[in-house]
Amino acid sequence: MADPGFALAPSVPAVAPPVAEDGTAGPSKNELKRRAKEEEKAKKAAEKAAKQAEREAQQAAADVDFASELYGKLPLNQSQTRTRRPRVFIHELNPNLEDQTVLLRARVHTSRAQGNKMVFLNLRQRSDSVQALLTVEPEKVSKQMVKWAASLQAESIVLVEGVVKKSPELIKSASVGDVELHITKLYLVSGIDGRLPFSVDDANRPDAEIDAGEGQYNRVLLETRLNNRVVDLRTQTNQAVFRIQHGVGELFREFLTANGFIEIHSPKLQGSATESGATVFKVNYFKGTAFLAQSPQLAKQMAIAADFERVFEIAPVFRAEDSNTHRHMTEFMGLDLEMTIEEHYHEVMEMLDNLFKAIFKGLNDRYRKEIDVIQKQFPADEFKWKEETLRLTFAQAVEMLVEDGVDRETLDDINTENEKRLGGLVKAKYDTDYYIIDKFPMALRPFYTMPDPNDPTLSNSYDFFMRGEEILSGAQRIHDAAFLIEKMREKGIDPDSMKYYVDAFRMGCSPHGGGGIGLERVVMLFLKLNNIRRASLFPRDPKRLEP
Amino acid sequence: MADPGFALAPSVPAVAPPVAEDGTAGPSKNELKRRAKEEEKAKKAAEKAAKQAEREAQQAAADVDFASELYGKLPLNQSQTRTRRPRVFIHELNPNLEDQTVLLRARVHTSRAQGNKMVFLNLRQRSDSVQALLTVEPEKVSKQMVKWAASLQAESIVLVEGVVKKSPELIKSASVGDVELHITKLYLVSGIDGRLPFSVDDANRPDAEIDAGEGQYNRVLLETRLNNRVVDLRTQTNQAVFRIQHGVGELFREFLTANGFIEIHSPKLQGSATESGATVFKVNYFKGTAFLAQSPQLAKQMAIAADFERVFEIAPVFRAEDSNTHRHMTEFMGLDLEMTIEEHYHEVMEMLDNLFKAIFKGLNDRYRKEIDVIQKQFPADEFKWKEETLRLTFAQAVEMLVEDGVDRETLDDINTENEKRLGGLVKAKYDTDYYIIDKFPMALRPFYTMPDPNDPTLSNSYDFFMRGEEILSGAQRIHDAAFLIEKMREKGIDPDSMKYYVDAFRMGCSPHGGGGIGLERVVMLFLKLNNIRRASLFPRDPKRLEP
Repeated sequence: MADPGFALAPSVPAVAPPVAEDGTAGPSKNELKRRAKEEEKAKKAAEKAAKQAEREAQQAAADVDFASELYGKLPLNQSQTRTRRPRVFIHELNPNLEDQTVLLRARVHTSRAQGNKMVFLNLRQRSDSVQALLTVEPEKVSKQMVKWAASLQAESIVLVEGVVKKSPELIKSASVGDVELHITKLYLVSGIDGRLPFSVDDANRPDAEIDAGEGQYNRVLLETRLNNRVVDLRTQTNQAVFRIQHGVGELFREFLTANGFIEIHSPKLQGSATESGATVFKVNYFKGTAFLAQSPQLAKQMAIAADFERVFEIAPVFRAEDSNTHRHMTEFMGLDLEMTIEEHYHEVMEMLDNLFKAIFKGLNDRYRKEIDVIQKQFPADEFKWKEETLRLTFAQAVEMLVEDGVDRETLDDINTENEKRLGGLVKAKYDTDYYIIDKFPMALRPFYTMPDPNDPTLSNSYDFFMRGEEILSGAQRIHDAAFLIEKMREKGIDPDSMKYYVDAFRMGCSPHGGGGIGLERVVMLFLKLNNIRRASLFPRDPKRLEP
Repeated sequence: MADPGFALAPSVPAVAPPVAEDGTAGPSKNELKRRAKEEEKAKKAAEKAAKQAEREAQQAAADVDFASELYGKLPLNQSQTRTRRPRVFIHELNPNLEDQTVLLRARVHTSRAQGNKMVFLNLRQRSDSVQALLTVEPEKVSKQMVKWAASLQAESIVLVEGVVKKSPELIKSASVGDVELHITKLYLVSGIDGRLPFSVDDANRPDAEIDAGEGQYNRVLLETRLNNRVVDLRTQTNQAVFRIQHGVGELFREFLTANGFIEIHSPKLQGSATESGATVFKVNYFKGTAFLAQSPQLAKQMAIAADFERVFEIAPVFRAEDSNTHRHMTEFMGLDLEMTIEEHYHEVMEMLDNLFKAIFKGLNDRYRKEIDVIQKQFPADEFKWKEETLRLTFAQAVEMLVEDGVDRETLDDINTENEKRLGGLVKAKYDTDYYIIDKFPMALRPFYTMPDPNDPTLSNSYDFFMRGEEILSGAQRIHDAAFLIEKMREKGIDPDSMKYYVDAFRMGCSPHGGGGIGLERVVMLFLKLNNIRRASLFPRDPKRLEP
């Protein structure tokens, strides 16, 4: 045990002894009486002082904390030592580890003192949590240690040594509920400087529970969450959302690599505005100007002209659109692919369709736990799709809407509202959340889209939908320079402004097609998060550039 | 067979019969003699005319091209039909397919006519090629078909039907040399409009061969290549380089995912200049200004503060540095990771070290063919590394250079030249192309670097090297807000300018560290391509924004 490092209180009373200082003058009766009184008084004072001293001594004895090395704030970790003692993850804890001592680093999710002899800590790592408890015990856990533990702020990071014990009953407030940790050592790794903007529990609570709570819970608004995103991201829901986001990328790559695609990285800095100048961000580039790529469209087509045959890219795309909706961001992740066509653009459409089905299945197979965690906060019908994907033509989709009472005159394009409505009709009729609309009118598609061979007002293009919202747009592209120039002129684009792109097709290019998927939209719609910002780590929109 | 669609030449001779028109006047002897001569003359003329007519008829008969449907330019592929007839890849061809008819789409790499009855085409797909030949054969291949085939320009894309035949001898000019294709049908899918900037063969030729050729070969300069990148990328070398680039990303993800990392996507648009304002690109952001992220440094650290524990990102990073060297670009791919530390930052350094070894081994195991293809054009010693990676401290590296004769005064930092020199010394002494330098002076590192616990002039930071060039820089980071602010002020950075970043650490953050790898540098140095632009699909530097 350590030297307590502070002096004990003195135990000698500070009162003079009751004797005459010289012994010469004889005392009078009154004087004797007065002296007796004073003696009595002094005696009482001495007794009082002695008692006080005894109390102080007792107190001092108690202050010698035998447990002082078992808890406290650690020095700033600057990699001073390396014991290589193994640490465990909460999700590894289970009843088979009964009575074993483990070491782990975790957040204090919540803490609750029971009297001054016991404290419960709910410890959290990512989406996992476990109950830990600390109880005063002679020579093992001191009152001071319990008091210190009870003072730990929520969201502090602690290093905990404890013994694994089967829970007397299942602990519902922890994801690992069949064991608890009996703390033997407890140290603070990183504390809180200031006030938390909201508690992680509040941020993780379903809206329905808040509504039912009639004011007993704080509702954390999206704006507040995004302003304090680092704390918001700690919820079990968000930890799971970003594992799903990782999963979508992983499944995208796996499927495409297995199908002979290679990953490319195309430049986001462009010498000229790509596709359409209106929605492009300008960059000061040394003494000139550059533009941020709105998509890897041109580059991935050039990769086809360069014989890569099948390419994909996962990269940010930038849109300078002043759209403030639940599904637009100024920067989002594009999952893009482009591939050569042997005979028919449906080869591409079917590749994309099989890709999506592989992603949906992969998410359900590998991320069941995460989906369940998220559904607690964002209840949603399980995402449904068919082995044989429903394909409608644009004309058929229009018919469905007209039959449902939408004015045909308004259906030159299908706007967001009608898209949603169509999603409902499709769900009711075909029981699927996922479908394809093929053969869009040429007028609705970009200049590089290949027209239909039989009807030049239609195009070889398609959109894919999840829960009534577009998640992919794609098409066969024009691979012939002369025809491309003709179409550029029709749409009022100067072919010289995209010279390198047009020239790529002069040097011979295979027929090809592809598509671009919005990663955050897929995550949002699969999980029904209702706002795309929830599917983006640090979202960017016209009004938000931070954090 | 099709109607030839043109008239045959007339077969009646245009000469009058040798009889008198009225039969009245008796002829003189001279007259008879003259007539006999004329008759003889007319007879010869008639014979000659008959022969001519016969020749013309023969010629006309030959012009009826029985093969006209077996070759020619296809209409623009607008997905008119879908026969679903399987097509093969060149790399699938082998002697076991002897006598089988196959269909494939390929580039005409080169063509060579032999007289007017035979033409050889070298067909190319990505890094693969095969020899195909077309020979005049009655009722199968016409002279017209051979003539048309011989006229196909290099780099045209053709659809070829042919019969697989074992090669009489190994064809060295093709990657699949043990078979050849006897063409039965040949169509043009996409032709060349204009002149090729250079031949793909020229672009694929090793410098040594060009030097030895004493002027017989064209040397294609890097600048010319980059200006015509779509054609340049078609070389077998480049097809292999970008498969290796794909491989590095794939191995990076595989290793980290297996080690519990998740992939994040952080915004490239930032509200304030990150790290240091001098080298950041400004973006016009609606009515305000944004900045392009120089690295995901701040975001990935915030992801740690948000409890993701282990994260990686593969994304473009932007540097507004006016550096025009063989190893700088204004946009390149960062392979970044960040992870929590339990005890010591060497946990991170060792994770990175194991990552690199997994990448090197993975490349050699999975991309042997590509490495061999590239070494033909860029000969290089095989990349060497040790199972136990050499670690030097910065101080030890300085000592090695001093011992080699470098002036110690110049070694406050190790410049590019001395880096290279050190690489040579290390190779000579330790026989490795890969090593780590640990414990850089604090003065050389950014403000967020954690100082050494014992010597505040040193830091818990490291660089990794391949063939004497830095490919990774990393460190333990400061995870304490107060200490971070102190270090920012020391480096003259206003903490308020990075408020969201600093605030993240106020809400509790685990000790952590990480590193950032330059993808193109790894590819360049592993393969010894000597210029980073060769490892970038469409490179960007201060002078290049296109294509």
